[in-house]
Amino acid sequence: MSDRFVYFDAANSTLLDDRVVEFMHSVMSRKLGNPSSHIHSAGIAAGHVLDEARAKIGALINARPETAILTSGATESNNLAISGFLRGNPSYGLVVSEIEHYSIINQARRLRLDGHKVDYLSVNSDGLIDTNQLQRVIKKGPSLVSVAAANPEIGTIQDIEEVGRICKQHGAAFHCDATAAAASINIDVEKMNIGMLTLSAHNMYGPTGIGALIINSGVNISPLFDGGNQQMGIRPGTENVVGAAGFGEACKIVSANRDEWNSSLTTLGESLREGLSRRVPFMHFTGHPEKRLPGHVSFWVEHVEGESLLLLLNMNGVMAASGSACSSNLKGKDEEDLAASHVLTAVGVPTDICAGSITFSLGKYNDSRDVDHVLSLMPGIVEKLLAMSPSYSDYMRKKEILHG
Amino acid sequence: MSDRFVYFDAANSTLLDDRVVEFMHSVMSRKLGNPSSHIHSAGIAAGHVLDEARAKIGALINARPETAILTSGATESNNLAISGFLRGNPSYGLVVSEIEHYSIINQARRLRLDGHKVDYLSVNSDGLIDTNQLQRVIKKGPSLVSVAAANPEIGTIQDIEEVGRICKQHGAAFHCDATAAAASINIDVEKMNIGMLTLSAHNMYGPTGIGALIINSGVNISPLFDGGNQQMGIRPGTENVVGAAGFGEACKIVSANRDEWNSSLTTLGESLREGLSRRVPFMHFTGHPEKRLPGHVSFWVEHVEGESLLLLLNMNGVMAASGSACSSNLKGKDEEDLAASHVLTAVGVPTDICAGSITFSLGKYNDSRDVDHVLSLMPGIVEKLLAMSPSYSDYMRKKEILHG
Repeated sequence: MSDRFVYFDAANSTLLDDRVVEFMHSVMSRKLGNPSSHIHSAGIAAGHVLDEARAKIGALINARPETAILTSGATESNNLAISGFLRGNPSYGLVVSEIEHYSIINQARRLRLDGHKVDYLSVNSDGLIDTNQLQRVIKKGPSLVSVAAANPEIGTIQDIEEVGRICKQHGAAFHCDATAAAASINIDVEKMNIGMLTLSAHNMYGPTGIGALIINSGVNISPLFDGGNQQMGIRPGTENVVGAAGFGEACKIVSANRDEWNSSLTTLGESLREGLSRRVPFMHFTGHPEKRLPGHVSFWVEHVEGESLLLLLNMNGVMAASGSACSSNLKGKDEEDLAASHVLTAVGVPTDICAGSITFSLGKYNDSRDVDHVLSLMPGIVEKLLAMSPSYSDYMRKKEILHG
Repeated sequence: MSDRFVYFDAANSTLLDDRVVEFMHSVMSRKLGNPSSHIHSAGIAAGHVLDEARAKIGALINARPETAILTSGATESNNLAISGFLRGNPSYGLVVSEIEHYSIINQARRLRLDGHKVDYLSVNSDGLIDTNQLQRVIKKGPSLVSVAAANPEIGTIQDIEEVGRICKQHGAAFHCDATAAAASINIDVEKMNIGMLTLSAHNMYGPTGIGALIINSGVNISPLFDGGNQQMGIRPGTENVVGAAGFGEACKIVSANRDEWNSSLTTLGESLREGLSRRVPFMHFTGHPEKRLPGHVSFWVEHVEGESLLLLLNMNGVMAASGSACSSNLKGKDEEDLAASHVLTAVGVPTDICAGSITFSLGKYNDSRDVDHVLSLMPGIVEKLLAMSPSYSDYMRKKEILHG
């Protein structure tokens, strides 16, 4: 194993920011009670930690602090947004893009099986939804529209402001999953008419297991849990105080540094993409060429198995992803699910010749040496895998026959 | 305000153990990826943190590590246990005691409204269920029985082993909420025939926002969230890695120190109870006199408002609780809910003359100076509140008329 540590998997989980770690440590070192214990100082102090966290979260996306419902992460937030909303508003149809996260796609599938009205927005080969299709679909009746701001697998950024404008115009409720986007895209829930917004701390240099659903005041939601009256009864259960502190601090750090990070990440991403396209044969980049997350490079290499490529990279200290983390944890799932990511299928990647895609998602801790290291490794690794590839030897044999 | 810090609210949330804090800090300081990213070292390292946590959790209650499903806390665990089980086993009736936590009582209420069969086990004035009633109820058909090992408000400990034996004998599924009990009672899920067990880290010197549901291999559960395949699909969503680490460490510390803590807490509790009964007039203790959590003293004082008493205690650096933390966070709830705790009503506390109960729940950080401090404060505070109490002046007037 290499002693290099080149972490190119920010889309699945960013590394914790040192300041977040120290802030969480300082909060843990205080004597805090249950934040619902309003009757005594230790409980009130814990409540203040939550208030401060909600203020920092709200400031990131121009939401009032009290609209931030703390959850255990994006999956819970997305379930609260879709299932919680539809329980409170059963007459609404659900409209989701084909490339949403599993926590949304699988809700849509279940709701459809239960007889609920569900429409899917298709995407073009760059991963962009068609806003004309959106308009046609939501004209048919009251709708809850769920479109993510960016896709973690292929990096494409949607025009969320336009989606919000269309939803407002037609009276549709709009939920936006900003899990992959919040560390790099400036989201303004007011300006963008976002009724519900999902945030996840571990995709923005905060800890795993904590997230939020921003719920605008007009939106009626049923809780997923029965229990106490925490968080106005929308999300019963004692809040994750230390996690919320880290999440809030992460939001504050993102707010202050995002522009600078983006500028650096854009340069690194372009240099990585350009180097790969120059040095590696059979490259197919996925996602939109320009409307994409900074520092996000996704692709597949014809004749090459994605998982093998990732294992060889990891042996050289480079950590990256195949599809989304959730879909890579498929022990015991259907063969069909293993075969192809729903995102790659939706953007028309030919799954018969694509044997796995790669996502390099850079974070603020990466620099040009990391990019150079990966670019120096990739040609050799791909060459080795091509030499082992039955599909490549087929290809070469056919080529020889054709060209003599 | 006092500069004393006497924390008597362990039943709502224990203070974090310093070793838990340092362990969480050491985990946070490592470069960890998404635990579902099995393809690279940073993800695998995060997965190992979870494995280690599950092993420590399992060791506390004699469960195999892989049966520990990590959740965001007791409320989620209790919802997964009841609603998740009944979704997977709709023919089962639900049997709960009258003094369960809100997260169980409110599920029972909702399920009953939805037409589901629900039976309530009544408790005697000490808060103990009647195992004969349990036997009669579960003979009627397939049942899910949910009985907590101990009640945080009145401190009573149930005979869980006997409940498990009866459930096994009649083929009922048994869920036990061990939130209040796990820091002080030795629970063995195998020996006690517990099919599902709820644990909460912040009730055993670990952080808030993390808990577990132990699910025995034979139990069929439907997940509460749609999403990825984390935790065998039973609980989709990226796990709280830092929280799980703290939870596991807390379990390890409890395993090693419980007996010693219990011995000290029992002495402190007895001395507190004895001192209160000697020095404070109009005392009514609640819960079972012997079968109770060590260091747990609960009572109400006739003519005295519980909340006022708690506020005056807090001004003198003493932090304690009125009812459960969840029920004290009742902004916006019904008047009826505000009026009386369902636990006090169930044990027959006369809610017309009881104006609020108090729970002193001690933790391992308390010592005899804390008990002495509280005992020195209580007579003066109660005297002051009696002087302000209309019900006390009524009582005195009547007494004067009677006795001339």
